[in-house]
Amino acid sequence: MEYKFSTRTEKIKASTIRELMKHTSNPSVISLAAGSPSKDAFPHREFAKITEKILKENPILALQYNVSEGYEPLRENCKKLMGSDVKDTENVLITTGAQQAIEFIAKIFVNKNDTVICETPSFIGSINAFKSYEANLVGVDLEEDGISVEKLEIALKENKDAKFIYLIPNFQNPTGVTMSLEKRVKVLELAKKYDTLILEDNPYGELRYHGETLPTIKSLDKDGRVIYVGSFSKTLSPGLRVGFLLANEEIIKKAVVAKQCSDVHTPMLVQMICNEFLTSYNYSEHIESLRKLYAKKNDLMIAEIEKKFDKRIKFTRPSGGLFVWCTLPKNVDMQEFCKKAIEKNVAVVPGNTFLMDEAEVSNSFRMNFSTPTDEQIIKAIELLASIPMD
Amino acid sequence: MEYKFSTRTEKIKASTIRELMKHTSNPSVISLAAGSPSKDAFPHREFAKITEKILKENPILALQYNVSEGYEPLRENCKKLMGSDVKDTENVLITTGAQQAIEFIAKIFVNKNDTVICETPSFIGSINAFKSYEANLVGVDLEEDGISVEKLEIALKENKDAKFIYLIPNFQNPTGVTMSLEKRVKVLELAKKYDTLILEDNPYGELRYHGETLPTIKSLDKDGRVIYVGSFSKTLSPGLRVGFLLANEEIIKKAVVAKQCSDVHTPMLVQMICNEFLTSYNYSEHIESLRKLYAKKNDLMIAEIEKKFDKRIKFTRPSGGLFVWCTLPKNVDMQEFCKKAIEKNVAVVPGNTFLMDEAEVSNSFRMNFSTPTDEQIIKAIELLASIPMD
Repeated sequence: MEYKFSTRTEKIKASTIRELMKHTSNPSVISLAAGSPSKDAFPHREFAKITEKILKENPILALQYNVSEGYEPLRENCKKLMGSDVKDTENVLITTGAQQAIEFIAKIFVNKNDTVICETPSFIGSINAFKSYEANLVGVDLEEDGISVEKLEIALKENKDAKFIYLIPNFQNPTGVTMSLEKRVKVLELAKKYDTLILEDNPYGELRYHGETLPTIKSLDKDGRVIYVGSFSKTLSPGLRVGFLLANEEIIKKAVVAKQCSDVHTPMLVQMICNEFLTSYNYSEHIESLRKLYAKKNDLMIAEIEKKFDKRIKFTRPSGGLFVWCTLPKNVDMQEFCKKAIEKNVAVVPGNTFLMDEAEVSNSFRMNFSTPTDEQIIKAIELLASIPMD
Repeated sequence: MEYKFSTRTEKIKASTIRELMKHTSNPSVISLAAGSPSKDAFPHREFAKITEKILKENPILALQYNVSEGYEPLRENCKKLMGSDVKDTENVLITTGAQQAIEFIAKIFVNKNDTVICETPSFIGSINAFKSYEANLVGVDLEEDGISVEKLEIALKENKDAKFIYLIPNFQNPTGVTMSLEKRVKVLELAKKYDTLILEDNPYGELRYHGETLPTIKSLDKDGRVIYVGSFSKTLSPGLRVGFLLANEEIIKKAVVAKQCSDVHTPMLVQMICNEFLTSYNYSEHIESLRKLYAKKNDLMIAEIEKKFDKRIKFTRPSGGLFVWCTLPKNVDMQEFCKKAIEKNVAVVPGNTFLMDEAEVSNSFRMNFSTPTDEQIIKAIELLASIPMD
């Protein structure tokens, strides 16, 4: 029979990155296309001990239905992690990965054709979640120190009822760019001036390798204007799928109803594993070890780029996170370059993937340094450098 | 600040059952309000062994990102469970509980004001998922042997472009009613005649205590008209949150995109636990033990009702599942009855909870027999029987 799908499904497509992954299952391909943690990053021995303890001491709690808000001790631990960023009027909802938190915000705020303002380029998973509620996506250019404040104000003027501004202030995906403190303050002022919300997505915040930690936009917010999304995917494990939403209680209440409709609650076992790690193990020491692991890979990739890439290729120098963003000179066809990369057995992600509309032109590509081994990073940069650009 | 939520959030409210749960956290209250498995139903020792093995032998697979379609061996096991119900043109998507499968079907099919036809009363979680996409819900009365076929045809005539008919053919929630084979055939014929889909939700199908298993509507379907939702919540554990969608590949492809936007994939650990149980343990023996456990509770509740309830209270005699549905005489105020029940420390769910619109009048209430102990069942029925009806 012929299926009549909803109009919202016409706006979204299967993720290009996931299509790319098909190439990368070929073991001779070095993938710089993923956004996954290193396989050396998982505290799996600790998780094994924790899980044994949970299923021995507390099996019913782990296996029975629970409340949609999330496992209470884990909610408390998330608040503790966020410290003074959490106001009395705010609360936490545990989600099945940060992606779900973002999807809920789209679901509870976005009517068809409502404007959502994004950095451009931005995270494809969020872009697709917004599109799946038929948002009108308005992209605002990123600069070296974060979103262009001037262009943001123009966008806000032109889209008076924008529902929210979606931002990844730390080590942005895909660019690796970090928003300066000055811009964090200004962006919040603009949100206030134009009476809109900010959706602050911070999956990489704890993975800073250089420079000093900047305050979250949430911490600067005094009137419930910032909705914060946190994640344990990059710090503990993405396969566990545990993230959280921190926002004003009124927003959390609506998100809890969305959660009841969606998956009732996040699986208890994965919530309890996260919670037990946060409670009984040294989380900050674990983060410190990740920082060391990734700082080395980050620095190695940058050094190799400096050594081997054509000087006409511009690139970002991230102070944290998982990604480096390269921009080819105008005369070079980026899609052609990425195709040649695959022929040389290196996968990178074409930059247009991260635009509001994939059909727009991009001259950039994204490279990940957390998943490949050091040897693979060296080899991949060498192979990419050998692609003729003229 | 004042939040401007999407119009779709206005249609849904926090679940009444979850509000009721607040009463039932009082340990002196006997709850017949839940829909949870018995705490004696979980194979937690097996899960402990399985999890130890997974985290020892395969930690990276359990902790790293994976594909949105679901863990491939689990998908294969789901197909095996469904046997010849699965056609060559069909596939399986693993979901974070059956609730998520239902939400995806709403998301990918329902435009604002599209009609969805439901049995009335029906499962509140599904009703809310449909409402959250602003469906026009049309309820069709249930009879002792399933949905009224005559009234269904009237509804289909009056709603020419109905997107789908939502059905729980086995031991329906909340009524415990099972649809006869004759009606299964007729309903599928009607779906064909009026060119609409059927969403067949079967969370309790394996929990049959009396009579013979009836074929699923899916098994009767030859042209991809039936979308099937399965669940491990009632057979293995609801806390693990593992369910699945079985449908034509074209539908699965759209649902996979919804999955990418929603939670990327179901947590790997819980998928692998389910899969290992299905692969290396005796699933049918486990189901047999559940059947014995619940058949006893079912029979006990029915016997106690027969012995103690006022003869004017009508009740269903389920052949499986978790629920008995009681209907008070017309002159008795059901809400008042449920309030008096709480005063006597027994929680049941008011029937209007399961109607398309909670504001409609119901004279019924739902009782669950899987969660309470035998002693609690006897005591609760006695207490309910003592509520004066005149």
